[in-house]
Amino acid sequence: MKWVYIEDLAGYQDQDVEIRGWVHNTRSGGRIRFIIIRDGTGFAQATIFSKDENDPLFKTFDRLTQETSLIIRGRVREDKRAPGGYEISVAEIEIIQVAVDYPITPKEHSTPFLMEHRHLWLRSRKQHAVLQVRAEVVRAIRGFFDDRGFRLMDTPILTPSACEGTTTLFETKYFDQAAYLSQSGQLYNEATAAAFGKVYCFGPAFRAEKSKTRRHLIEFWMVEPEVAFATLEDTIELGQDLILFILERVLTKRRADLAELERDPSRLESITKPFPRLTYDEAVPRLQEKGSAIKYGEDFGAPEETIMSDLYSSPVCITHFPAGIKAFYMQPDAARPDLALGVDVLAPEGYGEIIGGGQRIHDPALLERRIKEHNLPPEPYQWYIDLRKYGSVPHSGFGLGVERVVAWICGIKHIRETIPFPRLLYRIYP
Amino acid sequence: MKWVYIEDLAGYQDQDVEIRGWVHNTRSGGRIRFIIIRDGTGFAQATIFSKDENDPLFKTFDRLTQETSLIIRGRVREDKRAPGGYEISVAEIEIIQVAVDYPITPKEHSTPFLMEHRHLWLRSRKQHAVLQVRAEVVRAIRGFFDDRGFRLMDTPILTPSACEGTTTLFETKYFDQAAYLSQSGQLYNEATAAAFGKVYCFGPAFRAEKSKTRRHLIEFWMVEPEVAFATLEDTIELGQDLILFILERVLTKRRADLAELERDPSRLESITKPFPRLTYDEAVPRLQEKGSAIKYGEDFGAPEETIMSDLYSSPVCITHFPAGIKAFYMQPDAARPDLALGVDVLAPEGYGEIIGGGQRIHDPALLERRIKEHNLPPEPYQWYIDLRKYGSVPHSGFGLGVERVVAWICGIKHIRETIPFPRLLYRIYP
Repeated sequence: MKWVYIEDLAGYQDQDVEIRGWVHNTRSGGRIRFIIIRDGTGFAQATIFSKDENDPLFKTFDRLTQETSLIIRGRVREDKRAPGGYEISVAEIEIIQVAVDYPITPKEHSTPFLMEHRHLWLRSRKQHAVLQVRAEVVRAIRGFFDDRGFRLMDTPILTPSACEGTTTLFETKYFDQAAYLSQSGQLYNEATAAAFGKVYCFGPAFRAEKSKTRRHLIEFWMVEPEVAFATLEDTIELGQDLILFILERVLTKRRADLAELERDPSRLESITKPFPRLTYDEAVPRLQEKGSAIKYGEDFGAPEETIMSDLYSSPVCITHFPAGIKAFYMQPDAARPDLALGVDVLAPEGYGEIIGGGQRIHDPALLERRIKEHNLPPEPYQWYIDLRKYGSVPHSGFGLGVERVVAWICGIKHIRETIPFPRLLYRIYP
Repeated sequence: MKWVYIEDLAGYQDQDVEIRGWVHNTRSGGRIRFIIIRDGTGFAQATIFSKDENDPLFKTFDRLTQETSLIIRGRVREDKRAPGGYEISVAEIEIIQVAVDYPITPKEHSTPFLMEHRHLWLRSRKQHAVLQVRAEVVRAIRGFFDDRGFRLMDTPILTPSACEGTTTLFETKYFDQAAYLSQSGQLYNEATAAAFGKVYCFGPAFRAEKSKTRRHLIEFWMVEPEVAFATLEDTIELGQDLILFILERVLTKRRADLAELERDPSRLESITKPFPRLTYDEAVPRLQEKGSAIKYGEDFGAPEETIMSDLYSSPVCITHFPAGIKAFYMQPDAARPDLALGVDVLAPEGYGEIIGGGQRIHDPALLERRIKEHNLPPEPYQWYIDLRKYGSVPHSGFGLGVERVVAWICGIKHIRETIPFPRLLYRIYP
């Protein structure tokens, strides 16, 4: 008998198949027994019907507990009432292991308890749906860039220098020297963009931040495109297109997961480009109106991001920040050199920043001056300065944080559920 | 005028376009000047023809040095003799920055010099070709698994426990405890496979090995699939299919790059499945015949891998290793419990191991015994043992190292050229 996956059941109507999986739930009534079986690709209902109360299948059924592993053989029948539209009429059950006292029951559990059992919590319907969306988001991102001719250029995790200061860096001994875990592949992207034109890196990034917010992970995944000859405007356009592409793919392919999460898809469907845009100069008075204590010249904190991202039902782009609060490599605006040609994109509904990027300095003298002004040691940046000496060109890019995008799309409160094994302040198990 | 990329030139025959890039090379003769321009997507020839020796374009041409950044405007003309089949008849040159004394000239440079200038070396034709192949290999791998219903489940880099001993681990301080950089996502894959059926992770892995061989990187990328209910045989089948899929994709899409690398494609085209297979018991006498000093019961070292992988023109599978030399989680063979249901796949032509995998122990008592026998602390493995308590099923998977596959496909000697910024013993710059 053929082993098939639940997500493929529609192709096996009225055929005998084998499903391998785990008991999610059982229910019985009179002459009928129901098993909700999950196999990782979906959930299906298997039914046993018998007039004989001593039917051996009933005896086997009675041994089934939540998360018991088993193989069910039977016929696939269309049933509009069944979850997924098909059910299995059971002919045979082969129990592999009866699970005793599975810790995660349908009752409510505390978050610390669930986090401690993350390796099992992943099997729950809601967690399953969130991580299916995550996998789709990642696939959409890679497809977006690959299909547009971007070259994937994996940037190193172990680096000798820091992108934005050293206080939030993880340090390790690298043979005879110190190394830090990367917070961004951007600087390396700038080298590969000069070699490959359009590039992206996509890997884990690390911030040793002692903050415990619902938007922060210690270890997270970030995609970072970089384009030679691209301006801030090109980057805003690219970022918008990427976000719209991700939304469209999830809305097409993962609608059932959004339904499982009780996420109203119309909130995502209504998003179109261009996104609303404000300069920093325009944003500050709006924030102050809404009760923020921000003063002109200060960076947005979490409260400002939340206010801003609550004001719109679409992602919003904030541009032209004061140069002083942005990274050393940001290209100044030609007309207003006190402003940086940077952009932050904030997700709506209070989800905060999902994109940060902009145009990079391409003038070698200016870059060297900025490195000095920021009190950065010049030696580890020598190669980075080289990029401005040998055929320097204007170039731009951004970083998009995968977990925040997933949290926003799924409409879930805390980012910790958007990655299989979240790394949080003081949490590194399992 | 439209900015187009060189790889798209064929679509713009007899049209005026703009190419933005860098001077790779120049040549002149009589009334004609040639510029080989690269824009990251390819190399194209741009020609200036004039009867007037004071033509301002000639003057501009004279300023061009290797890696000068520029914009060329002109008409696309078919020319079978030109590299790529098209050339640009130049109407206008806009120099962005003249590169002075670009360090990597067409003459030979030492490897340390090139490694020190890796950020620029990436622009060279050969490095460009290798990394195009790499990007294609990664894309093929992801497509292979995504299209077969595998769920991408990113596993953590920062981990509290070690997969295969602690001597080759990078350690870092994780707030109040110690953390290690992951060498494999497998253990976590086993948890996600029980939740999602078929999964894969694909990320960087780290080995703090004090070895300086042409096959080792400190930081490398590895893809690891894991399948619930799969046996060793299923895993061998999956590994073969993956390798054949990668080869086919590179042979279809990156033929020009293989030509640039002077790689004979017939060496790759001739590979079919099933790959030759030997058990460890069969392999040892063959190795001894070929001069290896290996004794029965010892693991393969680099010399054994080289001998074995030189014996075949196809990848070869070695299975059923002595359990004692393999990882603690390996499922023993039912008929010969002293042997592990593991498989190594060695690439031909001396490239060594590209896949390592097998079936995992699913019996909780046996797993706990093995953890004890290997003197591993049980606490960090509690969650891993849990997977055997709640609906344990047979399951299998493997890891494939991206850089070794790229080195083999490209036919290059040293693995350091297969990743944009290699991390080697004592080398972490740039």
